Amino acid sequence: MEESLKYIYKEQKELTNFGGIAALLGWDQMTYMPLKGSGARAEQLSLISRLAHERAISDELYTHLKTLKDAADQLDERDRIIVTRLAKDIEKARKVPSAFVEQMSRVTSLAYMAWQEAREKNTFSSFAPHLETIIELEQQYIEYVRIPGHPYNSLLDDCEEGMTVDVLQREFHTLRSQLVDLLGRITASTVYQHQKPLKIQLTIDQQRELCTSLLKQLAFPMDRARLDVSTHPFTTSMADDDVRITTNYEKEGLLSSLFSTMHEAGHALYELGLPQEEYKDTVISDAPSLGLHESQSRFWENMIARSQPFWTYFTPVLNTIASDAMVGTDERGLYKAMNQVRPSFIRIEADELTYCLHVILRFELELDLITGKITVAELPGCWNQKMTEFFGITPPTDKEGVLQDMHWSGGEFGYFPTYAIGTMYASQLFKQYEREHPTVHDDVSQGQFTPVVHWLHEHVHRYGRLLTADEIIKKTCGEGLNSTVFVTYLKEKYCPLYDI
Amino acid sequence: MEESLKYIYKEQKELTNFGGIAALLGWDQMTYMPLKGSGARAEQLSLISRLAHERAISDELYTHLKTLKDAADQLDERDRIIVTRLAKDIEKARKVPSAFVEQMSRVTSLAYMAWQEAREKNTFSSFAPHLETIIELEQQYIEYVRIPGHPYNSLLDDCEEGMTVDVLQREFHTLRSQLVDLLGRITASTVYQHQKPLKIQLTIDQQRELCTSLLKQLAFPMDRARLDVSTHPFTTSMADDDVRITTNYEKEGLLSSLFSTMHEAGHALYELGLPQEEYKDTVISDAPSLGLHESQSRFWENMIARSQPFWTYFTPVLNTIASDAMVGTDERGLYKAMNQVRPSFIRIEADELTYCLHVILRFELELDLITGKITVAELPGCWNQKMTEFFGITPPTDKEGVLQDMHWSGGEFGYFPTYAIGTMYASQLFKQYEREHPTVHDDVSQGQFTPVVHWLHEHVHRYGRLLTADEIIKKTCGEGLNSTVFVTYLKEKYCPLYDI
Repeated sequence: MEESLKYIYKEQKELTNFGGIAALLGWDQMTYMPLKGSGARAEQLSLISRLAHERAISDELYTHLKTLKDAADQLDERDRIIVTRLAKDIEKARKVPSAFVEQMSRVTSLAYMAWQEAREKNTFSSFAPHLETIIELEQQYIEYVRIPGHPYNSLLDDCEEGMTVDVLQREFHTLRSQLVDLLGRITASTVYQHQKPLKIQLTIDQQRELCTSLLKQLAFPMDRARLDVSTHPFTTSMADDDVRITTNYEKEGLLSSLFSTMHEAGHALYELGLPQEEYKDTVISDAPSLGLHESQSRFWENMIARSQPFWTYFTPVLNTIASDAMVGTDERGLYKAMNQVRPSFIRIEADELTYCLHVILRFELELDLITGKITVAELPGCWNQKMTEFFGITPPTDKEGVLQDMHWSGGEFGYFPTYAIGTMYASQLFKQYEREHPTVHDDVSQGQFTPVVHWLHEHVHRYGRLLTADEIIKKTCGEGLNSTVFVTYLKEKYCPLYDI
Repeated sequence: MEESLKYIYKEQKELTNFGGIAALLGWDQMTYMPLKGSGARAEQLSLISRLAHERAISDELYTHLKTLKDAADQLDERDRIIVTRLAKDIEKARKVPSAFVEQMSRVTSLAYMAWQEAREKNTFSSFAPHLETIIELEQQYIEYVRIPGHPYNSLLDDCEEGMTVDVLQREFHTLRSQLVDLLGRITASTVYQHQKPLKIQLTIDQQRELCTSLLKQLAFPMDRARLDVSTHPFTTSMADDDVRITTNYEKEGLLSSLFSTMHEAGHALYELGLPQEEYKDTVISDAPSLGLHESQSRFWENMIARSQPFWTYFTPVLNTIASDAMVGTDERGLYKAMNQVRPSFIRIEADELTYCLHVILRFELELDLITGKITVAELPGCWNQKMTEFFGITPPTDKEGVLQDMHWSGGEFGYFPTYAIGTMYASQLFKQYEREHPTVHDDVSQGQFTPVVHWLHEHVHRYGRLLTADEIIKKTCGEGLNSTVFVTYLKEKYCPLYDI
């Protein structure tokens, strides 16, 4: 038993190291790698993934885990928790044949390239055969994994363990109708009719200085993390003490680098706050779900950085760093400008209110594709129909519609819903935080963010995978996923903004 | 046989990928990694090294190689060349037990930390026990490898295949006495007595612009390479099409970032020019020796960037980019300033003329340590004595003496001589180039560097390991290592400069 314990800890450590190496290969690819390095990089990444997968599903690890599971009552609490968690992961991984994993990897590599070209040339039909193959593989994957209930639950489970289609359909149903209703009232309002985008032109240096000042205010630990630049902002973790975030300093745009930095900082603070010490380099030191991870980024991006108190704090900062770019806009003007609602085609450019509608649209289409209710050929039409239904606008081309996201080309079915889950969780956490800290608005208006960082660490980060996302939210907020909390938050914020 | 060929090509490709991954881990550590990422990074690097070593010495690879060697006459030329080369490498690697490799890695990790502390605190005695262990391990290594002749040949062979102590002693003997003599005449000259350092204060942005302009002039392919910043400049290769160089923009200093960029660009052009196509991802696509690699960096740093024609080209560039920093210094003044000779304590800050004396000093001490002629305890005294003998100056502390270089803490005995070998090779290649291209001085004074790049590619880079360094130099220059060529080059350059 001692030997088995030793073995599984060693293997977890090596898997952690493989993960960190893969993270660096990916980070470099998106930030600094010379253009022509991409061929070799794909091979290096695939080598590391293969080695890690081989280790994870090795018979030796499985045998040791079985020995330990059979003797679970003799293990101390920490060992038992780890053995249970690891065994569950490994048993799931072993359900999927290596040949299938390799096939999926090959297919999605090609599909990603096909998607890029299809998006560029606006030719959905050239991507369609790839998507068809991917959907067949997803269906095959569901057969291997067989999570009870709706077939899609097997895909959901990889991203949001324990979440089911039943729960999502219930919450999304409310959310969708409430959001469509709210959006209708907003677009019909006088304020909306007169709404004009605020133009602030910031140099890259000014944007960088603003982001850096914000990270400093968050006490973001620059000896354990760093901020770089990539086309699409992301967060990745090489190790407990080495987390990287990126942003993109657009030449124009309404401070989008600021919001993306806050968003990624939220992810990074989670990674940096995961359990160390007794759970370091174990399967526990990770987030239990993508939705919970997203709750942290959305919390900082929306509940903090898009709030009125934040702009009370940040307007003078902006005036100091970029006085030349400000055309006499005051904090109320900035707050309003940062929270303009507008039906739009592109998910990643959507405002806080319409964002989840983009997600629900994708979730509904994924369900229909996986269950065979619609075909890939019918997808662009269905997409456009739903866009019209939800937003009252129809994409002029597939580029602004069904071809905009890379997820499906990567076989990431089940991923989209976690964006909405995270957004809802964020509002639930924020409501709870407000309840416990009635001075939050004053604190934020004075740039005091660290109490929030500490509370999120205490109530979310430090658990790692000791609890599921659902358990963490229930423990902290007194109830599980609840779209009504989010809708109430939106109404309280946007009804005054649009005078409705 | 088909199967064996397939196997060895696959393995070489994977070993290439392991090498590229390790290169990225190391590059990131020196450039961007947050401070606290170092612990995990050491583990990640050690995991990759161990996996690569296990693969290199695996019985399966060895068996396939034996099969192929036995059937060598049935192989086509390319396969036969690769099998021969790979078998030689693998047979050597297999002479060294894995336990020894791990021990060496552990010992040098500790020794490196001890060296850093000892250098900081100027306490050689705290580093001494580590160095003693390392020397014992080097002696053990020699026992495993057993290259014929002098025991030190086994250490030399890893850095400079085929080079022997006999040859080095012969060449270094001439070089040493000639350099000491030349240095004596220089320091006694009137010009030397009146020599004052030129002070140019350049901003980091100006230095960056100068380096970038120079790389552009070299047609340095920025889609296959990049320039970053690290404490000590270096070159590393992630893949055929992904080579990274670094420099260091000092706040003050005489354009050292410029020379280091030229130096590293020389290394990088070699890496970028290694044989691809039929030899891609094989053991052939590599440099045959560190000395030959160094010849490429020294060629660009010394023969080009420290030449009179270069400053004819570069003075206007400098005046354009950094007019405010120039105090009316003309091209002749700059050329002289860049070529001031001065006895000094620190190797990496040494001028072109005294540099090799620093190297010969270390080589002589390494020989004495390995053969047991001197003990580690005697080392600082011997160092200082040789410094006085060679340069006429004595280091005030070990920090400026025996503790200055990291090489010994890393077990890199046999490495130092390659710096001098490279410098001599560079002068031999330059002499040959001059012979074939009498217009070289005009070309360089007009900033035309690409003919030189092409010639070096044609005569050095493209061979990879198809030939040894010695064979490449003989084929190109008509003779092997010859210190007299270098001494003649130095005399022709420095006698006029110092009016001697």
